[in-house]
Amino acid sequence: MRYCRVEVDGRPMSGRVDADRIVLLDRSPLDGAPAEIGVTVALDTAVFLPPVIPPVFYAVGLNYKSHIEHALEHGYPAAAVPQRPEVGYRAQNALTGHRAPIVKPVDVQGRFEAEGEVVAVIGRPLRRASYDEARDAIFGWTIGNDVSAREWQHADRSFWRSKNADTFKPMGPWIETEVDPLAQTTTIRVDGGVEVEFPTGAMIFDPYEYLVETSRYITLQPGDVLWMGADGTCQLNPGATVDVEVSGIGILSNPVVAEENIDTERCRP
Amino acid sequence: MRYCRVEVDGRPMSGRVDADRIVLLDRSPLDGAPAEIGVTVALDTAVFLPPVIPPVFYAVGLNYKSHIEHALEHGYPAAAVPQRPEVGYRAQNALTGHRAPIVKPVDVQGRFEAEGEVVAVIGRPLRRASYDEARDAIFGWTIGNDVSAREWQHADRSFWRSKNADTFKPMGPWIETEVDPLAQTTTIRVDGGVEVEFPTGAMIFDPYEYLVETSRYITLQPGDVLWMGADGTCQLNPGATVDVEVSGIGILSNPVVAEENIDTERCRP
Repeated sequence: MRYCRVEVDGRPMSGRVDADRIVLLDRSPLDGAPAEIGVTVALDTAVFLPPVIPPVFYAVGLNYKSHIEHALEHGYPAAAVPQRPEVGYRAQNALTGHRAPIVKPVDVQGRFEAEGEVVAVIGRPLRRASYDEARDAIFGWTIGNDVSAREWQHADRSFWRSKNADTFKPMGPWIETEVDPLAQTTTIRVDGGVEVEFPTGAMIFDPYEYLVETSRYITLQPGDVLWMGADGTCQLNPGATVDVEVSGIGILSNPVVAEENIDTERCRP
Repeated sequence: MRYCRVEVDGRPMSGRVDADRIVLLDRSPLDGAPAEIGVTVALDTAVFLPPVIPPVFYAVGLNYKSHIEHALEHGYPAAAVPQRPEVGYRAQNALTGHRAPIVKPVDVQGRFEAEGEVVAVIGRPLRRASYDEARDAIFGWTIGNDVSAREWQHADRSFWRSKNADTFKPMGPWIETEVDPLAQTTTIRVDGGVEVEFPTGAMIFDPYEYLVETSRYITLQPGDVLWMGADGTCQLNPGATVDVEVSGIGILSNPVVAEENIDTERCRP
């Protein structure tokens, strides 16, 4: 099954993808068994929202060896192969849906990059989980683009604007419930040309190992998401469209646009 | 006004504090004007929940000069006086209410400390705000205890368990809408004895400066919270009760308990 969220008449609705239509549902499948409401919308013109708004937005920073080597080469000395599966966080405000624009702020300089990631969506409460319990608690899988403004990432005390500015976290297009994410391939294309390609499963720690370790101290809830990190990045320039594909799940596609030349200086105290 | 959330018959309810009673409401005041439902509960036996569950949980790390000096003395070399008001994050799972236990995990060693903070609760969407707009967008003020396991904080790549383990973020008891937080005093007491006392307003950057800077890139939403940092910390041992008072708002009180000696090792992969 593929579950999504779409905007219909200005309101968020849950839906299930059925060939070229989206069958609207009366609730999120994360809130119990949904029923069809008897309305469908066309897949190719639907207004996609992030498929879930997570209570907690977990993200793995460095989980592929060549991404760590890349980070070291580009002057990020904190990069090192993690010895334990330790999660970090991103923020809800940054989420945006499939086909929605990634807005590059006027004052972003230097590298402005895509990172294509597979995302686990948690289906039930999880605390002190075994490896098998963690695997069984996953509702499904979606795709994330961990858009990053590198100069801010290196200069700031936290990832607050480098990774969490509005629209920097496209997620979608839907949640696929029947796929083994570790057997897939992740591909990033810019305007149709392949920029990055890597085996999705070549992780240092897999999603279930992260959930076992995290749930030793933390209760995960239905709808929480865990972004699994990226291998390889590519530059994003306004005017381009970036696609992140994870085979077996789908393609998350977003145009990149320059922020309008608004007078941000008036905002200073 | 003082608004709270309490558990009644197993369900979360919004309420307004009226002397020694809590007047139950049909909705959160953050969702529009609430109406009384004709039921009250006693203040002294109410089961308090966090007064709001924030969409995004913002937190200021280092915002008082003597706290930074303390951090440096205790081997946290990253501590430095911030040059700009840059937010960080905490996670929803860690929130717990007034009077609920702070659970010290079995494998926490060394310093396990309280940090008493005033907390801004956002009342309306905020983007590219001026200083005055930021001030006007605050719904009210509550109190947070940024409980921290220092050995984890220094050893781990992120604050995932050092500051975000379950129950490490007591918040409450209520949201006070009529108070100037910068004119108050913050006091931490352990079993009634004063451990820490500081002027709440002696911040490096005030809450409105943080909101101006954050909202340059980020849309804040009603219910988002901004924890403003602490000056001074004190050790928490199981069996003690820790009170964080911010004058003009109230007292957030929580017992500290040792985690039961559960077999956490079975959780490893």
